[in-house]
Amino acid sequence: MVPAHPASHPIDEQLPTEVARVLRTHLTRLGEPLRTTEPSFADPVDALTDFVLGGGKRLRPTFAWWGWRGAGGDPTGPDTEQLLCAVSSLELIQACALVHDDLMDSSDTRRGAPTVHIEFGRRHREAGWLGSAEQYGLAGAVLIGDLALAWADDMFYRCGLPEARLASAAPAWHAMRSEMLAGQYLDVLTQARGSESVDAALRIDQLKTAAYTVARPLHIGAALAGADESLIAALRQFGADIGVAFQLRDDMLGVFGDPAVTGKPAGDDLREGKRTVLLARGLEYAAAKNRDAEARRLRSYLGKAELTEQDVFDARQLLVELGAVDAVERQITELTESALAALASAGLAEPAGERLRALAMAATKRES
Amino acid sequence: MVPAHPASHPIDEQLPTEVARVLRTHLTRLGEPLRTTEPSFADPVDALTDFVLGGGKRLRPTFAWWGWRGAGGDPTGPDTEQLLCAVSSLELIQACALVHDDLMDSSDTRRGAPTVHIEFGRRHREAGWLGSAEQYGLAGAVLIGDLALAWADDMFYRCGLPEARLASAAPAWHAMRSEMLAGQYLDVLTQARGSESVDAALRIDQLKTAAYTVARPLHIGAALAGADESLIAALRQFGADIGVAFQLRDDMLGVFGDPAVTGKPAGDDLREGKRTVLLARGLEYAAAKNRDAEARRLRSYLGKAELTEQDVFDARQLLVELGAVDAVERQITELTESALAALASAGLAEPAGERLRALAMAATKRES
Repeated sequence: MVPAHPASHPIDEQLPTEVARVLRTHLTRLGEPLRTTEPSFADPVDALTDFVLGGGKRLRPTFAWWGWRGAGGDPTGPDTEQLLCAVSSLELIQACALVHDDLMDSSDTRRGAPTVHIEFGRRHREAGWLGSAEQYGLAGAVLIGDLALAWADDMFYRCGLPEARLASAAPAWHAMRSEMLAGQYLDVLTQARGSESVDAALRIDQLKTAAYTVARPLHIGAALAGADESLIAALRQFGADIGVAFQLRDDMLGVFGDPAVTGKPAGDDLREGKRTVLLARGLEYAAAKNRDAEARRLRSYLGKAELTEQDVFDARQLLVELGAVDAVERQITELTESALAALASAGLAEPAGERLRALAMAATKRES
Repeated sequence: MVPAHPASHPIDEQLPTEVARVLRTHLTRLGEPLRTTEPSFADPVDALTDFVLGGGKRLRPTFAWWGWRGAGGDPTGPDTEQLLCAVSSLELIQACALVHDDLMDSSDTRRGAPTVHIEFGRRHREAGWLGSAEQYGLAGAVLIGDLALAWADDMFYRCGLPEARLASAAPAWHAMRSEMLAGQYLDVLTQARGSESVDAALRIDQLKTAAYTVARPLHIGAALAGADESLIAALRQFGADIGVAFQLRDDMLGVFGDPAVTGKPAGDDLREGKRTVLLARGLEYAAAKNRDAEARRLRSYLGKAELTEQDVFDARQLLVELGAVDAVERQITELTESALAALASAGLAEPAGERLRALAMAATKRES
């Protein structure tokens, strides 16, 4: 084990565990009045609790924590538990996003388990209840996602931090949710339109990954520590750049990733028909070079349910030959450099600067 | 026109107009950053704005306003606009509830217009986009409802009232949303189970109408005026009782109402198969009196799409003969009396006491 940075604190080393602990406590507290009111509420409350505690990298609370630490938040101070509550609430927003996303995408499984709408539909069928099991599953997923969104606010605003601090983070907190929903909407719209535009794909990455996952969590954490405008601006710039770089690396892994490392089938993004920047770039270059046959082949793999190994191989070769891979790799490098420059200019309290730098490097170079 | 009470203020007389004005201002403010980010967001933002401004009795803001006035809130003071913003935010929670409810119920129209999921499905079909129009409509409704829920918090917490006041109303604000969602869930579950229990029907009324529509809005308003525990307890008691009485009156109108007055077809609750207290009481009494044939006839009308005039007539007669109508009328009277006693004990600042009394009388005696 690498020795921890001298200035680091035990919580720094075990953030996902701490976040899970705090979530467990607050989900119990939030569920209690509902369980007491009516035993039937145990079902949706348990479903949400299991979903939230069942996994996830706790990325958003982690960025919020480092935003707070970087702006001088002191984990040995009296407010640490309250701060952990505030940043852990971001996992409930993410739970809403995922439960509703699975419903909108008609996905059957997540993390190897049935999605919420599938599971509630199954319970309806098993019990032999009246009406449509599918519609009951839909209702379960809609309401559990709504509950997650409502409870996120409850955790954030009632975490016990001084009201003035919460008020200073409120604009970022509210903007984050609008950006998340806007990103989801643009994603749905872009798929429906069959858009091949690089701009549209990039815009989704900017909202869903950069703003919602990185920049706003950093912003919220820093604001909760009382950061000034210039520190927040530098962190947001870092988040905006590194967030898109993360997503571009994801796009690359979605086509070129090794199933043994990513845990997903080879070429999974092609099979799912994802409108990524990588793919949009490939089609853009094919058009610019009048290579219509190649563009047609590339399009034919998109959303193809029975994608063969040969198809994946051919798609990879096309994306390399057309120059899309080079372009995306170049963009990742540029975004990472500009992100790290913004980070260096922020002058964060250590070890936050070092840790964010390490997160940035790991995520843009990662293989899974 | 009846002269206004000497202590009344112009806003007291035109609450729905004031609420609509404030909602318009804030929906514009909240939508602006999204419109600027991406022109496509105009669609969901406009859809939500039109939905919220398109109608509704503004019941929840009205109760919150009178809770505030009753606890000494002064409309000539400097905080009135901020208070109107806080109480108007309740309409956004209601927008989420209705948009998601229409989706869960597969309702095609609301207030004579297509529901959100139907409208977004239509746009998809008209544009000839890829994928399922129905699934696109579903996504539109899920995201627009989520946006309403997120914006409700934004309006409430950023209304500009002193942070300590918001903090004192926060527990009620959060409880209200859990109660609304719990009520919706119990409603879906009760329909699926085909429950005939009076208790289950009453529990839904307590959550959806009493707590969510009356008691919590009164509580929030009073807390925003700095009310003490005993005043809040009296208002909540009033709300809990009168809210159920409202719903029982609604149940009566849903079977016995005159279409010319209610604006809905005769016996509409029967056609929709609603599991009301009235109906559950009818079945309970039929069982107690071993009148199986009557119970079977009553059940046969529930959810019957081609309900005839004769069916409605027979159902009405059955509910009267079985004693369900008398029982429900008695319960309305008792609840109204106990609500008015709680109101009298609250010692509200006038004209709030008088107005709440008038609202209670009108709603429990109303014909539409």
